Amino acid sequence: MSKITIWGDLMSQPTRMVVWVCKYNNISYDFNVVKIGLKEQRTPEYLKINPFGMVPAIQDNSNNFHLYESHTICRFLLNKYGDQHNLYSSNDIFQRAKIDEYLDWHHTGLRYTFHHYFHEAYLHPKFNEPIDFPLFDKTSNDIPKVLNQFQSLFLKNGQNQFVAGTNSVTLADFSAFCEISQLKLLKFDYTKYQHIHEWMQRMEKLTGYEDVFKFVIKLSKEEPNYLETIKRP
Amino acid sequence: MSKITIWGDLMSQPTRMVVWVCKYNNISYDFNVVKIGLKEQRTPEYLKINPFGMVPAIQDNSNNFHLYESHTICRFLLNKYGDQHNLYSSNDIFQRAKIDEYLDWHHTGLRYTFHHYFHEAYLHPKFNEPIDFPLFDKTSNDIPKVLNQFQSLFLKNGQNQFVAGTNSVTLADFSAFCEISQLKLLKFDYTKYQHIHEWMQRMEKLTGYEDVFKFVIKLSKEEPNYLETIKRP
Repeated sequence: MSKITIWGDLMSQPTRMVVWVCKYNNISYDFNVVKIGLKEQRTPEYLKINPFGMVPAIQDNSNNFHLYESHTICRFLLNKYGDQHNLYSSNDIFQRAKIDEYLDWHHTGLRYTFHHYFHEAYLHPKFNEPIDFPLFDKTSNDIPKVLNQFQSLFLKNGQNQFVAGTNSVTLADFSAFCEISQLKLLKFDYTKYQHIHEWMQRMEKLTGYEDVFKFVIKLSKEEPNYLETIKRP
Repeated sequence: MSKITIWGDLMSQPTRMVVWVCKYNNISYDFNVVKIGLKEQRTPEYLKINPFGMVPAIQDNSNNFHLYESHTICRFLLNKYGDQHNLYSSNDIFQRAKIDEYLDWHHTGLRYTFHHYFHEAYLHPKFNEPIDFPLFDKTSNDIPKVLNQFQSLFLKNGQNQFVAGTNSVTLADFSAFCEISQLKLLKFDYTKYQHIHEWMQRMEKLTGYEDVFKFVIKLSKEEPNYLETIKRP
């Protein structure tokens, strides 16, 4: 039996984080696809697993323990099954605090802007759904601000090789990368942000990257740029 | 010397959480007021302490270690100075995961809606600033939804005495209470949410409550209901 069962969709940034952390740490898992494009995360069956109707969610198969929220899931998995000194230090409380600091900032910093921008700039045009132009404009304006904050305050303009100032990758990098790389689907040019670009190249060499991102990479090559299809009323 | 230095404003929900957790755990601190009403969190001096321009921030005085993000600060303080088995269990990884699950949900669940609603419904009318009516309407509509989620999914309609399903208070309760109680300034009637009301009464008996909330309690009695002053264009 696999150690855990994951419910999710590899098109979801937080799902990719959990799957990648499992692959990187050799934590065995079964994967149940919950297709967010078909709104399967809102079915009565899935709401029994995560009552908030969001992916990912997991079950720890040793005792039927259920959990959602990707950061929480990864912290738990490393505590229970991982090498704790690796992605989320258990013996250096200062280093752990700097990882937590990023993970907490992520929700209202990077995630909020990227999540809403991606919905308005990619998902709505792709599925011919109405675009919320005030939200599109606000988040579109905020993307450079957030990326500059990320680059100057977390990567310290290249002084830091990784987000939390560590010598090797941590949970903070997995979380940030899964969100930032989503804009590849909109052909976003990251070479404009040199230190982010170099950090992304480091991340893309990690075990599990190609497996977890293959669908995103494929779509980013094959799809049109949906941004260019947007017509204002 | 105090163990830590805190920069913040007791009108800020996350500042109250950090101060309350210190008082509850007898962690000594010096407090530097950063008046958010005067936008002191955006001064060049303060931006050296927290470059994101938000309160609270702390310095651990044993080694000049700086940290922001209230949940991160509290996790760190309990790891370094607190009784770890108390508010954020270090020996029960399942319990710790349930505390983390709430703390992660908080950012995009409760905090997002309450933060924006409070700005539009209280701060802008109070200071005669323009109100963003679409945001006011959206968050106003979402308040009951979020409170019902909180009541049914975290308090399990009264089955849970505390947010993470524990027998005693945890970091999750401190975080949620500091945010939810902010609406007392708008005379919000919590008796409509019986289980939240009863949980709030339990929280208000904890060590440190009256000290940390005295300013909020005073204003909630003395001020008019700013909601009633709002005029739509």
